Amino acid sequence: MPDFIPKRLTLLGSTGSIGTQALDVVRAQPGKFTITALSAQSNADLLIQQAREFRPAAVVIGDEAKYAVVKAALASQPDTEVLTGAAALADVAGRDDVDVVLTAMVGYAGLLPTVRAIRAGKTIALANKETLVVAGQLITELVKEHGVGLYPVDSEHSAIFQCLVGEEQNPIEKIILTASGGPFRGRTAAQLAQVTKAQALKHPNWDMGAKITIDSASLMNKGLEVIEAKWLFGLRDDQIDVVVHPQSIIHSLVQFEDGSLKAQLGLPDMKLPIQYALGYPQRLPSSFPRFSFLDYPQLTFEQPDTSAFRNLALAFGAMRQAGNAPCVLNAANEVAVAAFLRDEIGFLEMSDVVETSLARVSYLASPTLDDYVQTDYETRRVAQELVGRG
Amino acid sequence: MPDFIPKRLTLLGSTGSIGTQALDVVRAQPGKFTITALSAQSNADLLIQQAREFRPAAVVIGDEAKYAVVKAALASQPDTEVLTGAAALADVAGRDDVDVVLTAMVGYAGLLPTVRAIRAGKTIALANKETLVVAGQLITELVKEHGVGLYPVDSEHSAIFQCLVGEEQNPIEKIILTASGGPFRGRTAAQLAQVTKAQALKHPNWDMGAKITIDSASLMNKGLEVIEAKWLFGLRDDQIDVVVHPQSIIHSLVQFEDGSLKAQLGLPDMKLPIQYALGYPQRLPSSFPRFSFLDYPQLTFEQPDTSAFRNLALAFGAMRQAGNAPCVLNAANEVAVAAFLRDEIGFLEMSDVVETSLARVSYLASPTLDDYVQTDYETRRVAQELVGRG
Repeated sequence: MPDFIPKRLTLLGSTGSIGTQALDVVRAQPGKFTITALSAQSNADLLIQQAREFRPAAVVIGDEAKYAVVKAALASQPDTEVLTGAAALADVAGRDDVDVVLTAMVGYAGLLPTVRAIRAGKTIALANKETLVVAGQLITELVKEHGVGLYPVDSEHSAIFQCLVGEEQNPIEKIILTASGGPFRGRTAAQLAQVTKAQALKHPNWDMGAKITIDSASLMNKGLEVIEAKWLFGLRDDQIDVVVHPQSIIHSLVQFEDGSLKAQLGLPDMKLPIQYALGYPQRLPSSFPRFSFLDYPQLTFEQPDTSAFRNLALAFGAMRQAGNAPCVLNAANEVAVAAFLRDEIGFLEMSDVVETSLARVSYLASPTLDDYVQTDYETRRVAQELVGRG
Repeated sequence: MPDFIPKRLTLLGSTGSIGTQALDVVRAQPGKFTITALSAQSNADLLIQQAREFRPAAVVIGDEAKYAVVKAALASQPDTEVLTGAAALADVAGRDDVDVVLTAMVGYAGLLPTVRAIRAGKTIALANKETLVVAGQLITELVKEHGVGLYPVDSEHSAIFQCLVGEEQNPIEKIILTASGGPFRGRTAAQLAQVTKAQALKHPNWDMGAKITIDSASLMNKGLEVIEAKWLFGLRDDQIDVVVHPQSIIHSLVQFEDGSLKAQLGLPDMKLPIQYALGYPQRLPSSFPRFSFLDYPQLTFEQPDTSAFRNLALAFGAMRQAGNAPCVLNAANEVAVAAFLRDEIGFLEMSDVVETSLARVSYLASPTLDDYVQTDYETRRVAQELVGRG
């Protein structure tokens, strides 16, 4: 095995589920990674704790009201600069002393720092799928222009990415994204109308943040992943299938033009795809629990029910519409999920908000980065109104 | 996709199951392959027909009694030389006007022509697993010395080979070979004692030759594959697991040191691994039927029953013994299967013949090629005696 050249990391969103697991990976691989910068939106306490442990050159706290707390707590650590605000986030994403930027912030907020990191020539470990959902064409063009690596962290996309190494000369025929089906698999629309926030937050296989857990329960997460996959792997809309696989062992599959399928499998554990993206192309030996067929004597598969789970159909529709439609889909969904988490709307109403927003926001076939910013803003206004907060 | 440079093929064993399917692949890929030579042990009629269609530079009929028939039938085709005998086989395997030699003959007979082809620098598409079972260390050293490619055709090994492309820098932690379990999966030893040849010849998933179909029913085929895999992929004995997977959709899996597993999947169809080995590293577009999870809503897995199916345990034991033990295992099994196919011994007695032969034939820790030839000869004598034909 060739020597691993240590990598300098910036973690955007270090206090979330992906961020904390990324730091677990860094802890478990001494000498392999150093931390240049960490950022968090609002969890000042954990950010301070992480800064004390990893002693980065900079930390960014998104919430300006918490800047003073973080600054004071790290006063005795002068090598760590304390920053706040959107400009600071973009700054740490593009610094010279960074090799890989892990984009693990939630939602649309990931877009602009990711653009900055790509323009600065950084390798991107992409955990923020919304970046590609919102502006896939623009991002993939930028990635090409700057010749940077864009390595997915989402387990499904990591699976496909892992299956594609060494297959550069072999075109993809199609990909099959697996979906657990979430906690409400098999329920009818009528039953879905009754589900509660507490039920939706209990994912059967994956331990994740609140936003993505709700998206998993509603299948919007799979819809966003479909759009993400289109851009990551340069696919036509008709080259992406979804199959429900409740055990979440086969993380996704690629079919080549000879008819052969390759899959990546393992226990549902985000640390593996995080480590793969950070260490790529080298696989670092790990002590993650190993999969055994003795624990999984049956793997099952079924078609997704897109009439009960309308979000998946809405996402496929937005992908086919292209232009700014996926940006509308994403922004409306962010507003809808937040409203659902505040008990302001029901589970099925989330799809209503998305569908109505798609109908109301003006369609743009070839949006610029500014157009995306404007579309996101406009969609949030429309969606807030729909959830009764306009 | 880069242009495919046409390859010149020699098919050893062209009238068997693998050979005829290889010619189906050649037919379906016009302009990609030319046939330099064909060989058959005894099926003169089919060999003549194939020679007329593909017009090779040479054909070899193994059975010398059939030479005159083939020679006469091809008298009007002067560009096709007709040969017979072991020396002729070795000759066509090593000719200058050949790129890839497909070794698809049955059993031990594959060893010497394969050695000749490697020494002549030919790429080997290895369908004759016995070559590696009998003399794995010697063959892999020869392959290294001559810098040739050795690409597996067995579906399980092809699966692992496909999963390893692009992973050259990443050591294997273990491999998991899948086994259909054959037609007698779940039967007790007492039930196995009663099974007939006709039952054993009905494989649930794969359409193959008689020898390998019996080996599949007795799990000896999986045992031979375990030993084949050890040499192909340079593994320790404890890095190879077998899991029974009755649907034969996941063809095998590799686990890397980060804990990630990769698998290759598809319908059970030997044409795909044959085409992959012939076209490697390029995947040629095919019209093979495509796999769909809708047709396979459940994939199941169980441990092999090595107390009822003793052959698998005997093969693991021979692998651990190393030296000439796998050669003894293979030769005794060839004699036992032939006797079973002549209704001379029962299904379970095949294992008895193998076990007793392993005990009786002298162990050699570091055999030469001559030692293997001698071990094979000696084992056949012992085993013939055991089946009552000594």
